[in-house]
Amino acid sequence: MGLMELTTTSDHASIVSINLFVALLCGCIVIGHLLEDNRWMNESITALIIGLCTGVVILLLSKGRSSHLLVFSEDLFFIYLLPPIIFNAGFQVKKKQFFRNFITIMLFGAVGTLVSWAIISLGAIQIFSRMDFGDFDIGDYLAIGAIFAATDSVCTLQVLHQDETPLLYSLVFGEGVVNDATSVVLFNAIQSFDMSKIDPKIALHFIGNFLYLFFTSTVLGVIAGLLCAYIIKKLYFGRHSTDREVALMMLMAYLSYMLAELLDLSGILTVFFCGIVMSHYTWHNVTESSRITTKHTFATLSFVAETFIFLYVGMDALDIEKWRFISDSPGTSVAVSSILLSLVLLGRAAFVFPLSFLSNLAKKSTSEKISFKQQVIIWWAGLIRGAVSMALAYNKFTSLGHTNLRGNAIMITSTITLVLFSTVVFGLLTKPLIRLLLPPLKHATSAASSDPNSPNSLGVPLISHSQDSDSFLSGHDIPRPSSIRMLLTTPTYTVHRLWRRFDDRFMRPVFGGRGFVPVVPGSPTEGNLS
Amino acid sequence: MGLMELTTTSDHASIVSINLFVALLCGCIVIGHLLEDNRWMNESITALIIGLCTGVVILLLSKGRSSHLLVFSEDLFFIYLLPPIIFNAGFQVKKKQFFRNFITIMLFGAVGTLVSWAIISLGAIQIFSRMDFGDFDIGDYLAIGAIFAATDSVCTLQVLHQDETPLLYSLVFGEGVVNDATSVVLFNAIQSFDMSKIDPKIALHFIGNFLYLFFTSTVLGVIAGLLCAYIIKKLYFGRHSTDREVALMMLMAYLSYMLAELLDLSGILTVFFCGIVMSHYTWHNVTESSRITTKHTFATLSFVAETFIFLYVGMDALDIEKWRFISDSPGTSVAVSSILLSLVLLGRAAFVFPLSFLSNLAKKSTSEKISFKQQVIIWWAGLIRGAVSMALAYNKFTSLGHTNLRGNAIMITSTITLVLFSTVVFGLLTKPLIRLLLPPLKHATSAASSDPNSPNSLGVPLISHSQDSDSFLSGHDIPRPSSIRMLLTTPTYTVHRLWRRFDDRFMRPVFGGRGFVPVVPGSPTEGNLS
Repeated sequence: MGLMELTTTSDHASIVSINLFVALLCGCIVIGHLLEDNRWMNESITALIIGLCTGVVILLLSKGRSSHLLVFSEDLFFIYLLPPIIFNAGFQVKKKQFFRNFITIMLFGAVGTLVSWAIISLGAIQIFSRMDFGDFDIGDYLAIGAIFAATDSVCTLQVLHQDETPLLYSLVFGEGVVNDATSVVLFNAIQSFDMSKIDPKIALHFIGNFLYLFFTSTVLGVIAGLLCAYIIKKLYFGRHSTDREVALMMLMAYLSYMLAELLDLSGILTVFFCGIVMSHYTWHNVTESSRITTKHTFATLSFVAETFIFLYVGMDALDIEKWRFISDSPGTSVAVSSILLSLVLLGRAAFVFPLSFLSNLAKKSTSEKISFKQQVIIWWAGLIRGAVSMALAYNKFTSLGHTNLRGNAIMITSTITLVLFSTVVFGLLTKPLIRLLLPPLKHATSAASSDPNSPNSLGVPLISHSQDSDSFLSGHDIPRPSSIRMLLTTPTYTVHRLWRRFDDRFMRPVFGGRGFVPVVPGSPTEGNLS
Repeated sequence: MGLMELTTTSDHASIVSINLFVALLCGCIVIGHLLEDNRWMNESITALIIGLCTGVVILLLSKGRSSHLLVFSEDLFFIYLLPPIIFNAGFQVKKKQFFRNFITIMLFGAVGTLVSWAIISLGAIQIFSRMDFGDFDIGDYLAIGAIFAATDSVCTLQVLHQDETPLLYSLVFGEGVVNDATSVVLFNAIQSFDMSKIDPKIALHFIGNFLYLFFTSTVLGVIAGLLCAYIIKKLYFGRHSTDREVALMMLMAYLSYMLAELLDLSGILTVFFCGIVMSHYTWHNVTESSRITTKHTFATLSFVAETFIFLYVGMDALDIEKWRFISDSPGTSVAVSSILLSLVLLGRAAFVFPLSFLSNLAKKSTSEKISFKQQVIIWWAGLIRGAVSMALAYNKFTSLGHTNLRGNAIMITSTITLVLFSTVVFGLLTKPLIRLLLPPLKHATSAASSDPNSPNSLGVPLISHSQDSDSFLSGHDIPRPSSIRMLLTTPTYTVHRLWRRFDDRFMRPVFGGRGFVPVVPGSPTEGNLS
């Protein structure tokens, strides 16, 4: 209405910062596109650098005073930016690849995070307590371990690509998602238990908590997705409305995330599984134009949110307030950052290689095993610490009003240093590392085996659905051994086969899905552009 | 990350309210769909009623205490909800219809708002000053006039439909958009001039201000749209990326609105013209899947924002704090509401009928004239006062901390009463009124003459563009009189013809647009689903 000139000056400041952020986002998109073919850069690093430059300009313009423009808000991050990214990842994930490696992903996400957390915490206790820069108790050290053991799923999406390295992507990204549930349990455990006395009972309690949280979060996401599929199938049958379908899918997905947060579950796990279920059922119940719209809208929202996060982290890094406290002892901050980086490197190495070895033992064919080169990339790509670590560090070290303590200020600046360093250095080097270790020829063949069941391969389902599902079922049905024997020999495939049979017989007739929704009269592309 | 349980309780309250709102939005969409064929209801009234019911439930649950869940935020409304609605209206508007009635729309929006404002202000001065319920000065009465003279474009979208009554839609909605610029000028004038002494100099100053504001706001929107078209045409030529294109269009449109607000211009005018330019140029420069995505995404966002606004207004209406002050004198509030309603009815009648008469004088063919029945609908449909009036009333009567004054409390409750009454009563009766006055047969013929140039008719441009533009040009070129003589006889068509020639010769080669962007290799539907 143009009447905002009547309102107070704080509104004016927020209008200025919205203008700045939106303009910078446009800049990031354009520059990111121009640099697309560059072998080093990716969009996240571009956004980070643009954010840093803008921070410098603002700092110079405000003559060294801190600006309110730069305050990092956890709410903004966890409530608005993270859900679309994780949902889109679930929506576009290659489900076959993901579930084939499910056990390895669970190992990495649960056991791996614990190993990493233990090593970082122990290292922090041993080293930081001797450095005397702050007054931390054992709980603080364990929290530091949890903060830096958290893999950043958002960064993973930037450096690994589903089409180029599907196995690595599903392992590292899936680990990041499962990791979230582990982190929630860890944080709760640190708060409620006396972790200095670890006995088997606490460990059992911990495992029970993790399994409970993992199960409930997943079920909540699955229920939200199925409910959405059911509503659209029942209500919109025969008279589709693209706007309502798209709105309902977006809102239900968001609702699942917020409900999980409300119930103290893992929102990331919930919304990820909601995305998987929606792409398997709901997406096939809507019109062709709704399919195109949802696919691209979710991807666009995720893309904008990712760019925004990196821009934000870059701009926030230069907030002068944080650096003022450590200006008398820059050496300490550098030392703390280096120690943390070494602990992160060590902690990740300590679980990636042993767990990959274990996972390889269970697999028979050589093509399914994780090669040493792939292990190195898994180790490397998961080293990036991003906005998630930053938000957790802020939560831990700036809440309760004790930002002004020297120890807390050093932890915040060290986190920023670590985030900037790892994003830029590991981010820049991942692309060349993959090219070095895994020759491009190999990617091309693995990319060809894309899952026709996912929104990634738009249009294909309409043509090839019956052929594909039939070939999968019949191909495995010909020898027809007893299901139990097969479960023992090739477990993943049998689970998949049983699931497909169950899906076709019970789930799809109720919730819709590929081939189970009658075609709407009229052309699929033009029919219902309401 | 699921770590929000660590944060403070205020965050918990915001999570609860987000959950509630999102769940209610889902409910509104589903119920709205079920009631779609109902001849009385529309989506806005459904949302309003659901909001009211939820308000009652919350009131009962909190045992009469006011809840923070219910506070109406102007920022939320003007910064996040209004821009997508107005942008989408511009993006989907039938441009030919809109520009054909441009002069009438300007008359209604500028002169009409002034007439309405003068009548409501004078009536308020005459009546309210004798009622002695508050201590208002002349500026307050003029502000009351401005608040209730503002047509609510959002409500118009709900009761009039572009496809059914294109002339009425373009007149009433266009009036609402132009009205915004008038309101800004009016509010500024009330604040800066001594309006009690009106002399010709002030009137000239006022007209000058309006023209300046109208011109700069429009130009800003046009520049934003053209810039976006140019960037996409230059950068993405040959290698499209749907996600980037969609993101860029969304962000540039939003940027235009926020820039207008920053520069104290009319954001609504800016974003409306940005939408028109984007649908004319930018939309034709992107891939087929981007076109489908943008069309539906903008419509969906607008739809969700509209539903949210009505839900919000409904829930907010029952906030007990506001009603406490007038509990001793409910009669006054009812009287004030009734007087305001009568003034609004009178003020609108005072310009719709005379200005329609003037507009009809300038038109030669009977089919282009506004019939008396249509005038009645224009008068009726523009009577609805909605969230815009509410936001303005809040801005005027709750800012500066003097909410507790009795006069202000009465004005707020009267505004709420007027908004609820007009939305429900006029909203419910508009559909039957249109059916009564304009038989459906007539709509069908006018709906058939849809503009193939707009995103409303997806797919058509690719097939019929050359034929359409040729026929238009050649059809009028055959007699070929001098352009100036033609300008005097049939002004609108000549302006259109000159514009088309200018557009084809200078604008489209630079900014792209229908038929001026080479077809991307590969199938248009499947080619570039990045």
